[in-house]
Amino acid sequence: MLDTIFSHRSIRKYKNDPVPGGILDKILEAGSRASTTGNMQVYSMVVTKDKEIRKQLWEAHFKQDMVLQAPVHITFCADFNRFNKWCRLRKADPGYDNYLSFFTAAIDALLASQNVALAAEANGLGICYLGTATYMADRIIEILDLPGGVVPVAALVLGYPDEEPGLTDRLPMKAVVHEDTYQDYLDKDIDRIYAEREGSELTRELLEINQKETLAQVFTDNRYTRKDNIHFSKQFLEVIRRQGFMNQ
Amino acid sequence: MLDTIFSHRSIRKYKNDPVPGGILDKILEAGSRASTTGNMQVYSMVVTKDKEIRKQLWEAHFKQDMVLQAPVHITFCADFNRFNKWCRLRKADPGYDNYLSFFTAAIDALLASQNVALAAEANGLGICYLGTATYMADRIIEILDLPGGVVPVAALVLGYPDEEPGLTDRLPMKAVVHEDTYQDYLDKDIDRIYAEREGSELTRELLEINQKETLAQVFTDNRYTRKDNIHFSKQFLEVIRRQGFMNQ
Repeated sequence: MLDTIFSHRSIRKYKNDPVPGGILDKILEAGSRASTTGNMQVYSMVVTKDKEIRKQLWEAHFKQDMVLQAPVHITFCADFNRFNKWCRLRKADPGYDNYLSFFTAAIDALLASQNVALAAEANGLGICYLGTATYMADRIIEILDLPGGVVPVAALVLGYPDEEPGLTDRLPMKAVVHEDTYQDYLDKDIDRIYAEREGSELTRELLEINQKETLAQVFTDNRYTRKDNIHFSKQFLEVIRRQGFMNQ
Repeated sequence: MLDTIFSHRSIRKYKNDPVPGGILDKILEAGSRASTTGNMQVYSMVVTKDKEIRKQLWEAHFKQDMVLQAPVHITFCADFNRFNKWCRLRKADPGYDNYLSFFTAAIDALLASQNVALAAEANGLGICYLGTATYMADRIIEILDLPGGVVPVAALVLGYPDEEPGLTDRLPMKAVVHEDTYQDYLDKDIDRIYAEREGSELTRELLEINQKETLAQVFTDNRYTRKDNIHFSKQFLEVIRRQGFMNQ
């Protein structure tokens, strides 16, 4: 268990080999064992193996090569559609067309996704989350035919790895852990937390490739810009509204 | 790995025994190995062991007994505060005061939380997620002293189990898995999906305790009502805004 967690790395190159059905079923079942609010299971996993549909997803996910390569694409959705239908068939009035319900369903979907990721890795497969699932939610809804009450919140590809990358560096644990209550960071804390990362060879390369003075600028100016964030924020909020989760 | 995932059950009764520091550190480190968008690590884990603060959290989390009993309480937060501070100290202008950035950070926090949950269980500990973390986000912010840019999105308690509950039932896998694209549910699909759960002894008991005709009504009328959902939706959206994530 811990071995699997501690050896996780995102895989961006995949072999052609398909994932045997029995293994995939077990991985998906692992997803279903994650905690879910009130055991409502208000999420869905859309498992796309069809090549033509994966090509459409590849286009939506910014045409990242690995999306075409990996034989399995799973989209994790906040899903109150099934639960609402059940309520209506059982003389119950579902009050789940609001933001809290969306977020509750998103939590269900995300906990399931991490179980799926780990179960895949425990079976010798590689995975990579696609951060673009929320950016491109409107297009993914079209491609996967998601009805009202359903919003994609995460996606990952999986397959047999065709690379063996090293572990990604992480900030020191004291950067992300707070004891009892939150201790806000002084400037010197920030310097200390980021020192190793900023001094690394990877950072030196990134600064050169991106022609920036600081690593932080690589993020703010190139990778995750204000302009893009605002654009995708508006789109994602509109998707949440359109799928029926802002009716309070 | 798979054994841990497949034997997960929420634990609601805990022994007094403290969790050894070395084990807790390892569990938290497991959290830090989860995927995180662009390796930004925009989340924090607030680990509360202090009894007085845990009592305040217990009050916030609807006074559930287990919150007082369990020796460790972890609050998982979407956190752009640290990253923003870093950007500002490095001549970079952070554009992360928008909804997309909040949701990105929430994903980081939730994937980390599931790693923590599984690593705890792999070490013989029990856990229980507290769905009330989003309901009571405003109060939790006060108790844990969370600054702007930080929003609690999940919480769990952990400790040594003082009960051995059975596995929770789940809907059949075909209820939550879709092949290639989403196949919407016909009435007969819903009947089939819910048949086993509705026919169970647990359901019979719930109907009697709640004096309801259908299990769905137990959810809509008693457990997760429209009125509560709307109330907590407004509060949570206000928290997201107040913590600085709605400035687009």
